[in-house]
Amino acid sequence: MKHVLAASQFDKKELLAIMAKAVEMEKIIKNGSSDLAKGKIMAALFYEPSTRTRLSFETAMLRLGGSIISETDVTFSSITKGEVLSDTAQIVGGYSDIIAIRSKNVGDAQTMADYAGVPVLNGGDGSAEHPTQALLDLYTISKHFNLEAGMNAVMVGDLKYGRTVHSLTQILRNFKNVNISFVAPAEMQVPDKYLETGDRKFNCLNDEILETADVIYDTRIQKERFEDASDYEKCKDSFIFTPENVGKMKDNAILMHPLPRVTEITQEVDKLPQAKYFEQAQNGVPIRMALIARALNLK
Amino acid sequence: MKHVLAASQFDKKELLAIMAKAVEMEKIIKNGSSDLAKGKIMAALFYEPSTRTRLSFETAMLRLGGSIISETDVTFSSITKGEVLSDTAQIVGGYSDIIAIRSKNVGDAQTMADYAGVPVLNGGDGSAEHPTQALLDLYTISKHFNLEAGMNAVMVGDLKYGRTVHSLTQILRNFKNVNISFVAPAEMQVPDKYLETGDRKFNCLNDEILETADVIYDTRIQKERFEDASDYEKCKDSFIFTPENVGKMKDNAILMHPLPRVTEITQEVDKLPQAKYFEQAQNGVPIRMALIARALNLK
Amino acid sequence: MKHVLAASQFDKKELLAIMAKAVEMEKIIKNGSSDLAKGKIMAALFYEPSTRTRLSFETAMLRLGGSIISETDVTFSSITKGEVLSDTAQIVGGYSDIIAIRSKNVGDAQTMADYAGVPVLNGGDGSAEHPTQALLDLYTISKHFNLEAGMNAVMVGDLKYGRTVHSLTQILRNFKNVNISFVAPAEMQVPDKYLETGDRKFNCLNDEILETADVIYDTRIQKERFEDASDYEKCKDSFIFTPENVGKMKDNAILMHPLPRVTEITQEVDKLPQAKYFEQAQNGVPIRMALIARALNLK
Repeated sequence: MKHVLAASQFDKKELLAIMAKAVEMEKIIKNGSSDLAKGKIMAALFYEPSTRTRLSFETAMLRLGGSIISETDVTFSSITKGEVLSDTAQIVGGYSDIIAIRSKNVGDAQTMADYAGVPVLNGGDGSAEHPTQALLDLYTISKHFNLEAGMNAVMVGDLKYGRTVHSLTQILRNFKNVNISFVAPAEMQVPDKYLETGDRKFNCLNDEILETADVIYDTRIQKERFEDASDYEKCKDSFIFTPENVGKMKDNAILMHPLPRVTEITQEVDKLPQAKYFEQAQNGVPIRMALIARALNLK
Repeated sequence: MKHVLAASQFDKKELLAIMAKAVEMEKIIKNGSSDLAKGKIMAALFYEPSTRTRLSFETAMLRLGGSIISETDVTFSSITKGEVLSDTAQIVGGYSDIIAIRSKNVGDAQTMADYAGVPVLNGGDGSAEHPTQALLDLYTISKHFNLEAGMNAVMVGDLKYGRTVHSLTQILRNFKNVNISFVAPAEMQVPDKYLETGDRKFNCLNDEILETADVIYDTRIQKERFEDASDYEKCKDSFIFTPENVGKMKDNAILMHPLPRVTEITQEVDKLPQAKYFEQAQNGVPIRMALIARALNLK
Repeated sequence: MKHVLAASQFDKKELLAIMAKAVEMEKIIKNGSSDLAKGKIMAALFYEPSTRTRLSFETAMLRLGGSIISETDVTFSSITKGEVLSDTAQIVGGYSDIIAIRSKNVGDAQTMADYAGVPVLNGGDGSAEHPTQALLDLYTISKHFNLEAGMNAVMVGDLKYGRTVHSLTQILRNFKNVNISFVAPAEMQVPDKYLETGDRKFNCLNDEILETADVIYDTRIQKERFEDASDYEKCKDSFIFTPENVGKMKDNAILMHPLPRVTEITQEVDKLPQAKYFEQAQNGVPIRMALIARALNLK
């Protein structure tokens, strides 16, 4: 069963195959429609609201010619009536051909996979995993840089709790020529377990980082966590991307963000050639199409 | 107009025709897809949350090749803005080809049928009716036993308020060789109006019942209703299905439950051959496909 | 980009083309289905609940053979997480081929159109515009009267705040032979900016108005606004449509209402030949099909 449960489940060969499949999927998107998944039903169980992720999964299934049943009502789901998730898995697995699940609870996607009898795609389970996000991030990078040749990747923002950064970092480890730097206030630095020899750590963004980066992956810093943090105060302005500092990046470098962004990237940046976060969001569709096609053995 | 409003509306001939149609529908499910309902739209109006029933109706329509418009937001529906249901019926009937409705209010499905101008399927109206559940229950039984030849059916649990038990009992009366026993604490026994000569009543589950049953239909007992009920206390453990007591059932007997189950059937039972409640849930799809096909005169 | 943002954006030629297109669309509805929009996805973003408008848009897209992704959860949308609408526009525009949006905020549809990169249909933005309603109103009139030949149109009810009345009035100005009367208590009369030479104003409905009207467009008066209004008290009963006063209308005259109606038109009126408000609601589907077909350049 070709579940997608964790970013770490894929080796390099599989990652490259998924990227190649996503490129194929972009052709389907451009041509309009496909009947690849005709007659197939995806159940979208979103026990935690996430409009962007849900609409991206649903769009992917529809572009493949399949259809959708969905549960987005957190308050009234069977789960809240006391039903165990393994029962829901068996029931919904009996209706549908594939399940996309998002949940607040670590491990829910695994439980679903254990019981549903159909492939399960993890759309985020609490603080644990969000593998389809990591794959669309990798895909975005792969459209601008050769993964095997490598590049300088810089993770910026809340690197302690940032699930997307952890997953992307793990996935990038498959590509030996990718150098990774981590830029975060000390209190928000990446946990040691994600570090490898050769990585670099910084507490503030500076010109040298900006000028040498190929990929900057920015994430939101929740300011309230830093009220009294002198370390953050020292360079908090460096964490706001503006036309001024983005202008210091190489012309072909890219600035990514999992979105939603609030104030950490000003809207003026959107027009610069480095701004790729909306393209990145859009890449969620071909990547999820590729994962659905892989799970359902389409074609 | 081929509405489905009440379990009692069908005679034996119609019931057998629906069962036969459901068998056909299972072939469509296995083959993947169908265009039988292509271009047809089902409106799913769920004024009371019921994920399982809604997803089952939607899956049925999608498997037939049709599509869905749905309203699940109880708080903001036109109804809560003061619109009478007969107006909603006329409006939604003007958009769609068939309507599935679930509501807290007895009679809402009938009102919908009176005004919509399109076939209406009752997905449960308060304490009154839930005919598609009764039909999928009958279908599940029919897949394991010959309805005409008959069998020993045992209703267990809250038989006083259990809508599904009442409807299934009524429907089984069409088959003269079906013997029915009712097992419930005295305070929760089946109302007299559902009883017929030859029925048996018990207050506790016992080995003889377990060993002679062909079909056990279990339902949840809400314990809080029995705090001081000495009658319930006497044998409350007998109402918990475990591998031990289910193991006393015949090998080809079946244990059913409308779900969700909480503690009345332990998860260890799921692996026993008698456990059919997940198969039962799955049977909701072909039955509802059969009812949609009947209502829309498909093929 | 063929957005639909405001009733005033269309000239007479365009209005007549849309009406003609809607007539074509009714043929598709009658024939069952269409593949015109096969492979196309509409995003329905309803940040303000409006079941009728949403289901009508969705039905229109489905009847054209397209599919739907939707967001109806006002509480948990990205917007409420602090995302600006222009970001949502770019993200959802990257998933879908066309967007229908409804919002409480004046100007949201325009913002969406500015950033989405795909056509946007305004499904109502606060007190400002609801152009698809005005077009389906015009379409309803056009099915009963020749717009060029003209007719007597009478607007009734809350004409001060009634968005639908303002939009329909503006659109009718394209047809020089349409005479417009406004009937409302003084406190609720139509704002001067919508008035033109030749219009007539009344504070109560009277027999002469009823007998000479070709089209009466009724809207709800919120009584609580008139507690102490002697002007309203004088003739409040004249604002309740009953078989008695509707019977005074010409046989081929039509009574319209944007719905939901509460007490301002009694249910007994529904059976009279003049009652066209349910037909009017139904006309929302072919009109929205016409607008989608126009926006996506179908066929």
